[in-house]
Amino acid sequence: MKWDDIGSLNCSIARSLALIGDRWTLLLLRNAFLGTRRFDDFQSQLGVTRHVLAERLKRLVEAEILNKEAYQPNRYEYRLTTKGRALYPVLLALTAWGDAFLDEGAGPPIHYHHKSCGKIMTPTMSCSECGEAIHPRDVIPMIGPGYVAEKKFG
Amino acid sequence: MKWDDIGSLNCSIARSLALIGDRWTLLLLRNAFLGTRRFDDFQSQLGVTRHVLAERLKRLVEAEILNKEAYQPNRYEYRLTTKGRALYPVLLALTAWGDAFLDEGAGPPIHYHHKSCGKIMTPTMSCSECGEAIHPRDVIPMIGPGYVAEKKFG
Repeated sequence: MKWDDIGSLNCSIARSLALIGDRWTLLLLRNAFLGTRRFDDFQSQLGVTRHVLAERLKRLVEAEILNKEAYQPNRYEYRLTTKGRALYPVLLALTAWGDAFLDEGAGPPIHYHHKSCGKIMTPTMSCSECGEAIHPRDVIPMIGPGYVAEKKFG
Repeated sequence: MKWDDIGSLNCSIARSLALIGDRWTLLLLRNAFLGTRRFDDFQSQLGVTRHVLAERLKRLVEAEILNKEAYQPNRYEYRLTTKGRALYPVLLALTAWGDAFLDEGAGPPIHYHHKSCGKIMTPTMSCSECGEAIHPRDVIPMIGPGYVAEKKFG
């Protein structure tokens, strides 16, 4: 498949990045996975301006990645939805790459203990069918059912 | 582990995002994985300004994610290094999430054929030790060898 066949409209990467493709949003989601739920906590942890944070949270609520719930009258918590929790592999992939290439020889700052098997793990992107780790050269992109053939994409 | 223990300096996610955490960079890398190597091709495919593209390519070369190689005098190609190819799981994770949640019911625009097993696959983030798909609630972050205890991170 040539690149021209895979424009934004036909690309799940581009669609995903349109929602979460900026650094603050991904850091905000990292914190949500670590248990942060309240505006002031996100703000103090990230050191982001309140304006930027409010805009990012609003966008994530609109995208149904976070759910905004009142825990007191006029006081809200932001919790990951099912769609939001499904972003965990994106964060794990960023983690694994940083651990492998950006640790300056010191080893990973954080280890990930997998409760299911009791071991320290490396998150590994694997094939759903055979379970093997996926390497770029083993993958062939093919037209799928949601491909839109009629338009020209940029 | 509380959030305050996982600041930027101790976080492989934050380190990774410092290098690749913007939308153009990730789209550019997507195209590199699809075989694009030349400035003009990146430019026409992405529709990005030459200034922005030049800046992003320069940063990726400095980070040793892309290698800049002359294929003629004064004509260059940009190829993924080993470190760059290791970003494939990040793109697959974005793809899988977009396929699952942003297809508007049409199914994935692109299918991924896994040459190793011959099947259409869903990229699945799995534990390196037991092979099971990783769910957020099954993971406990723990202090690793590269953790820096002395400083306060924001």
